[in-house]
Parts: sequence; C-alpha cells; structure tokens
Amino acid sequence: MLAVDKQSSEFLYRQVIDLIAENIESGALRPGDRLPSLRRMSVRIGVSIPTVRQAYIELERQRRVESRPQSGFYVRGIAGNPLVRPSPPDADRLAQPVSVSGISLMERVYDAIHQPDVVPFGIANPCMARPAAKSLNRAMKRVMSRAEERSITYAPTHGDPTLRRQIAYRYLDTVGSTIEPANICVTNGGQEALLIALQAVANKGDIIAVESPTYHGLLELIDSLGMLAIEVETCPEDGVMLDSLRETLKAHPVSACLFSTTLNNPLGASMSEKNRKELVEIIDQNGIPLIEDDVYGELLFSGHRPKPAECYSKSGRILTCGSFSKTAAPGYRIGWLVAGKYMEKVKRLKRSYSCSSGLLQQLTLSEFLASGDYDRYLHMLRPALQCNAERMRSLVAQHFPKETRTSNPVGGSVLWLELPGDISAENLFDDAIEAGISTAPGSIFSPCNCYHNFVRLSFGHPWSSKIEESIAWLGARVQHQLNG
Amino acid sequence: MLAVDKQSSEFLYRQVIDLIAENIESGALRPGDRLPSLRRMSVRIGVSIPTVRQAYIELERQRRVESRPQSGFYVRGIAGNPLVRPSPPDADRLAQPVSVSGISLMERVYDAIHQPDVVPFGIANPCMARPAAKSLNRAMKRVMSRAEERSITYAPTHGDPTLRRQIAYRYLDTVGSTIEPANICVTNGGQEALLIALQAVANKGDIIAVESPTYHGLLELIDSLGMLAIEVETCPEDGVMLDSLRETLKAHPVSACLFSTTLNNPLGASMSEKNRKELVEIIDQNGIPLIEDDVYGELLFSGHRPKPAECYSKSGRILTCGSFSKTAAPGYRIGWLVAGKYMEKVKRLKRSYSCSSGLLQQLTLSEFLASGDYDRYLHMLRPALQCNAERMRSLVAQHFPKETRTSNPVGGSVLWLELPGDISAENLFDDAIEAGISTAPGSIFSPCNCYHNFVRLSFGHPWSSKIEESIAWLGARVQHQLNG
Repeated sequence: MLAVDKQSSEFLYRQVIDLIAENIESGALRPGDRLPSLRRMSVRIGVSIPTVRQAYIELERQRRVESRPQSGFYVRGIAGNPLVRPSPPDADRLAQPVSVSGISLMERVYDAIHQPDVVPFGIANPCMARPAAKSLNRAMKRVMSRAEERSITYAPTHGDPTLRRQIAYRYLDTVGSTIEPANICVTNGGQEALLIALQAVANKGDIIAVESPTYHGLLELIDSLGMLAIEVETCPEDGVMLDSLRETLKAHPVSACLFSTTLNNPLGASMSEKNRKELVEIIDQNGIPLIEDDVYGELLFSGHRPKPAECYSKSGRILTCGSFSKTAAPGYRIGWLVAGKYMEKVKRLKRSYSCSSGLLQQLTLSEFLASGDYDRYLHMLRPALQCNAERMRSLVAQHFPKETRTSNPVGGSVLWLELPGDISAENLFDDAIEAGISTAPGSIFSPCNCYHNFVRLSFGHPWSSKIEESIAWLGARVQHQLNG
Repeated sequence: MLAVDKQSSEFLYRQVIDLIAENIESGALRPGDRLPSLRRMSVRIGVSIPTVRQAYIELERQRRVESRPQSGFYVRGIAGNPLVRPSPPDADRLAQPVSVSGISLMERVYDAIHQPDVVPFGIANPCMARPAAKSLNRAMKRVMSRAEERSITYAPTHGDPTLRRQIAYRYLDTVGSTIEPANICVTNGGQEALLIALQAVANKGDIIAVESPTYHGLLELIDSLGMLAIEVETCPEDGVMLDSLRETLKAHPVSACLFSTTLNNPLGASMSEKNRKELVEIIDQNGIPLIEDDVYGELLFSGHRPKPAECYSKSGRILTCGSFSKTAAPGYRIGWLVAGKYMEKVKRLKRSYSCSSGLLQQLTLSEFLASGDYDRYLHMLRPALQCNAERMRSLVAQHFPKETRTSNPVGGSVLWLELPGDISAENLFDDAIEAGISTAPGSIFSPCNCYHNFVRLSFGHPWSSKIEESIAWLGARVQHQLNG
C-alpha cells in the first residue's frame, strides 16, 4: 500500500524508500518494472516531487533501482548468479578446425520450437515480446491498396530500390556510415545473406573462424557448404578475444571470419568500439574477409547502435548481414547484405539461388520505416526486452542452483546459462520438451560440441505466469539432477 | 456487320461462314478470339442454333477456327511460319560437358526487364497476362484479420503444414498421384527448390544433363554451384530426345538430369506420357536422380495437367520442383520441392540456406487454394495465354521475315523464334532495349551459347496496341538486318 505518515518523525523521503522496498520485497514490484514517474508518485502519496526524487536517487545508490535516460527508474534484478566465464570450458579443443557436428540435435531443437503450445525458450525471436503485427498489417494493407498489381509481382533481383535506399539511410542516420544503396542486396532473411556472403568469399573445405559460442544457424550453414569451423575464444562482456584471434590466424589458413561484433548470440556481448577497430586492423593486415552477422545491432537495451565493423574499414572486404527478422517481422524473410567489393558476385549468387525476395514484404517494410513506425516500435521493444531479461535473470537466481552462472546480456533476447557440475543440457532439453518447454542446449553453439552443460533461454515473448512457472520448473529439474 | 439475307438463294449456314470469314479478314475477329456462343449467334442474326453449329463445324474443317472442349470455338492463328527444328543448330557442340558461359548477357537481360516502362518480352511471367492481384489481396487481408500475430512470425522450416497438405491434395486431385505432405518442403520460389535439389544430389564439378535449349536460370544456378552442364537434344514437340539421352549417359558420368518434361521453357513442348515413362526407365536403369522443373505443369492451354515424372517411379530418386510463381503470385516467392528419398537432406539444406519461407504468403496461398479461387483463376488464365500465343504467332508471321521459324507452344507464356540467316539475337536485344523493348536472346538458353540466332518472346502480359507495335518493330528490325 502506498501511504506515508506526515506526523511521523521519520523523514518523508525515507518513508518513500521504505514503501518502495516493501513493494519490491512483496513482489508487487518486480525486477525490470518501472517505478511510477516522479509526478505521479508525488500526486499519489501527497509528497513533493523533490522528495520523491531524493528517495529514488537513494534507492539507486543502494542499487535497488536504476535510472535509464529519458525513460525513468526501474527495479534492478536480484544480483544473484555469478557471470559466465570468458574462456570456454574445453579451450584445448578449440585449437583445431573441425567439421561441424551435432546437426541432428539442432534438428530436434527446431522441431521442438514448432510443437503446438510449447513454451518457446528455444528460439531467439525478440520481436515477439511485443509483436508489431497490427502496425505492419496496416502498412501492408496501405501498400496493397496503393499498388495492387505490384503487390504480387517480382521484385528486382537484388531488391526494391526504395527499401535499399531506406536501409542505406538508416545506416547514415544511426551510425553515420555512408553505404551506397547500390552496395546492398536484399535477401531472404539474414540467413540467406550469410549463405551468399560465405559463398562469395570461401569454398568447400575452407576454414571459417567463428566466435565460441556462436549461433547454431551459422554452424549448420558452414557444415552444409562443406566448410570447416574454427572457434575463437570469446568474452561474455567484450566479444571475440583478439589475442586468441591473432593466434588462430597465425596457426591456420583461415579463409574468412564470421563474427557478431555488435551483439553476440548466445552471449549477449557487444564488442567495445576500441576492440572493433583493432579487429578490423587485424582483418585488414591478414587480407581476409570478415562477415559480420549484424542482425541484433539495433537491439541493444541502451538504444545505442554500435557501428558495424564495416564502418572502420576501407578494404571493401567486410560484408555486413542485416535483417528485419529480429527487429520487426521474422516471417517476412527480408534481410540484406552490404557486400563491399563482392557486390557483383553477390548479385549473381542471389539471382541464381532464389531469383529475388518478396516484393510485398519489401514495400511494406519500406512503408513501415518511412512512416517512423519502425523507430517508434524499436523504442518500445528495447525496454520491454530489458525488462524480460531482468525478470528472467532474477527467476534463474531464485530457482536454479546457486552455482549456476549466467550471462548479463546488453541486448537481444537470450540468456546464456552455465549449469553446475556435470549436468547435461541435452538431457534437460529432452525432459523439458516432454513438459512442453523448448530450450536450446549449449552444445549446438559450438562446432565441436563444447558447452554440453550450458543452455540458452530466450526471453523474447510476452511475459506470463506460464513463463515464470517454466523457469521455475527448469531450475527445479536442474537442482534435482544435481542432487541425484 | 453481322447480318444474313433470308431471301438469298445461298444456304444460311454458308452465309454465316462468309460473315465470320469477313470479320476475320477485316481484323474485327483476331487469332485467339472466341466466336460468339451458338445461342448468342443464333439470337443475334436470327438463324437456328443447328445452322450456326453447321457453319462453325465447316469453319473448323477449313482450319479457320478450332473448337476447345467446354469452351467454344476460337479463331485460329495464321498458319504462317515453319516450326523450329528438333535438332539444335550446333549439334556437334553439345556432345561435351561444359562450364556455363554467357552469364554477363543473362545479367543484362535481367537488368533490362526491370527498366521502367519496358515492354516485357524478356521475362516469362505468365500470370501477369491476367493478374489475380485483387483476389490474392482479399485472401491475404482475410488471413491478417484471422491470425494477426501469425501473419508476421516464422513458418516451420520446411513449410506451413496446411499448405503442404494442400499441395499434396492438388497432386492427388489433378494427376492422381499420392504424395505425402511430409515429403514436401516449401521453398523461396521454384529457384530455391532447384538450388536445394541440385545440392542434395550433386557436388561441385559434377555433370548435370539439361535440355537444349533450357531455362537460363537453371544454367546460371549450375554455374554458381561449380557444376558442369551437358546438353541433350530436345524436340520442340516432344521434349528430350531419349536416344540422345541414352548416348549422353553412356558417354559421360552424368550425376543428375534436370529436365522440364511437363512443359519446356523456352520450347513450350510437353513430353508425351509414353516418352515420360520411358525416360523414367532410363533414369532408374542408370541409377541417377532426375530433377523435374515442373513450374509450368499447370499451364497447358488444354487444361490437361501432365503427370510429373515422379508419378512413374518408385525409386525415390526423382525430385519435383513446383511453384506458385508462374501460376499465381511471382512476388510471393513460394515454391516447393517433392524430395523423394532426399527429404532429410533437403530439410537440412532449406534450414541452413534460408531458415524458412514467408508464412503470410503461405497462409494466403492456402486460403486461395481452399476457396477454389486458384482453380477458377487457372481456368481463366489458360485460355487468356493461349489467345495471346496465337496473336503473337500471327503477328510474327505478319512482320518477321518469312524464313523465321517459330515454336508452337502447348502452354506457358513464351514463343521461341529461329531468326533466318546470320542474324544475331544479341544485337537485336541491344537495339530493342534502346527502343524500350526487352527480349531474351537465344544464347542464354544454352551453356555453350548455341542458339545465337534464336530469341524468346514472352506473351505473358495484358495484350495491347503497344505489344502489337513492339512485335512489328522487332520484325521490321530483323527484316532490316536481313536485307542489310
């Protein structure tokens, strides 16, 4: 109950602090929740705005809440678990290029995601936390009325020119980078961008350097193309470790690097600008191409949009893969590839692999960007994801064994957990799917099946009591395995 | 003017014949036009239905009109040009597997198609003759209201189950073939189906047998995958010549055949059922896979839907590539692959190449099929295409040099022309695009650039005086080159 006693000898701001603290302890205010605004709180409990502000600042000093610029004060997550460690658990196994294994487990993970009514912890689908369906459907209807026949016909092979201009403008607007629309090829989602990028710069049998851990879709692709993967140690707070990369490049004839410097999946790490510049120097010195998987670059909770590595290089050897699948419409299958000096080859590959991408979806996204709806949507989505992240971390701290380590993602929609002892995430996956919960076991994030005791959980869905119960169920299951 | 003189000594049915003949000669009735129905004609000119019928039958005997079952009587095209010949012009050059050349010309053909306001003779896009945009847009709006959030989210990797069931049902319904929905993988148009099919059965450096001539998109794909193509002689009336195929298979280690037996592009030929059965025997005896490009199978003018080769085989080595791009919505990028015994590999390739295909378009096509709109649309589209085909053949006969040979397509949307003498279709392409007319020069339909004096013209667009003038312009241009 929100009330203060003006007769009490206790300072009013102290009483406000106690009120908030009680609400946090009772669970009425949960990690990630926004405190009422200064004005609203002041009206509600009848104290002055400066008094409320004093209370909030003290709560921030006590690390119980945090302020976010232009947004307000939020309840912090429980400090809880230790962070996952920078070096991978089987560092000695990383030193060699390998054929990707574990494909059949990936297949089971995909199958699990699409079971009806499953709790979707196994899929990274951030925009489903607050889907923009209404607004996108409206935009699509406008396109259909305006351009009836165009809505069913072929797009130009490398993409609708208006959408390519808008993607280029967005790079200029968010990171100040001048990318020519003619250097952008629209693709069937980020995955086709990665396929074409890899085929443009490497051949069967070639070695591709990847982060450890990295997104399983990259690994399956590398395997499909008959290429080999070599893992580079990756820090859960700053991405690829550059000394480790230098050693890898010295020891092996790597044909290309495939990294997510703006936001790693599953770690949720974003490389510092300083390191990203240095990475580009290493790449340029070695004369090898870098494929940047930048599909999460717009989803840092802070709203800060890191510059893709491309911005620091003049070599033309950096290919940036982007997508609207993580930021707006997964099912539209619209991504893009900024192709540097490989553009001619990329256009040809795109044409021969799939002709062109859906025109109606391109026109709809064009409309969605031009109207400002895309920006407004991201502005709403990022704090929603951050709130979910904090709730999930707090629940993990509450329900999982205390030795469990977790990542502290700065964006995106996934949490990376290191389970204690010898617990097998694959067994957990099997048990959980029986209970209607999908998870992503750690070994699919490594070509040589490291991370067998890690699990990736997605928080990109509307929060619900079912979600909370499912986290509790997983925690209890792990605890049970640990005891037994 | 439609009138008969009942006082005349001339038989009434003879007068009806003269009336029709006058209208054909004056151009009031043009090749491909439908004559008024018996009832309507009888009412209009005041003679009995049997008299009109007698006249129409006599006109049919004279080969001036033709009857089409359940549709009526149509004005026949001018007999005009001789047919293109079965053997390719440089038969001796076909004997060896080659790397595909002529890619840069293909690129120029694609660029030309997307120039604004160009006359689109260069692109095979049948459904734009009578686009189903209104009906598809309505179906999509229904889907969006019914399933708001699903309309933006991911489809299962190998396709929406309802659409896969409907595709399977359509095979059962049209050709009596039982294909399991679980054996169908939805793809990004027919082109991605071809990509995945080729990758599932062959490797870099392998030899793929193709028809001569064949669709340039297949050749560019074979080239992109580092494979070699070998041409098999193909008859403009009955498709792949089986003796020629036998010789090719004897002489070379062919890894797979890639044929369009139901309707070849650019020839417009459909293989007889007898030959298709024999082809399957040859394939099975040799133990090699056959990839069938079946994207035009539903577009035979007669409405007869030939059985894909898959229906005659139990080996599981036949992969059928289908698509809605030629029959409904090119821009939706929805095709499929019936994968036989390669299904597991195909699902994996699909997942790693592009994750999944657009769900909203899949749901919309599902709706379009279920409502019966797809069938009604095809029922209207086929005669519209046949009418265009006859108009185009007649205009070619009128305006091109008389030595020009043409195909006589039984379906689809393209006419294949052999220009007389040493005329270069590439030069014609260059001249025509200057005049705002896109064409597809013959050499891109052969991996070793045969057919340099052939050109493919598309009639898959609404008929107009601009179309007629453009055909006349091309004819005059060829005549001019022939004279000069």
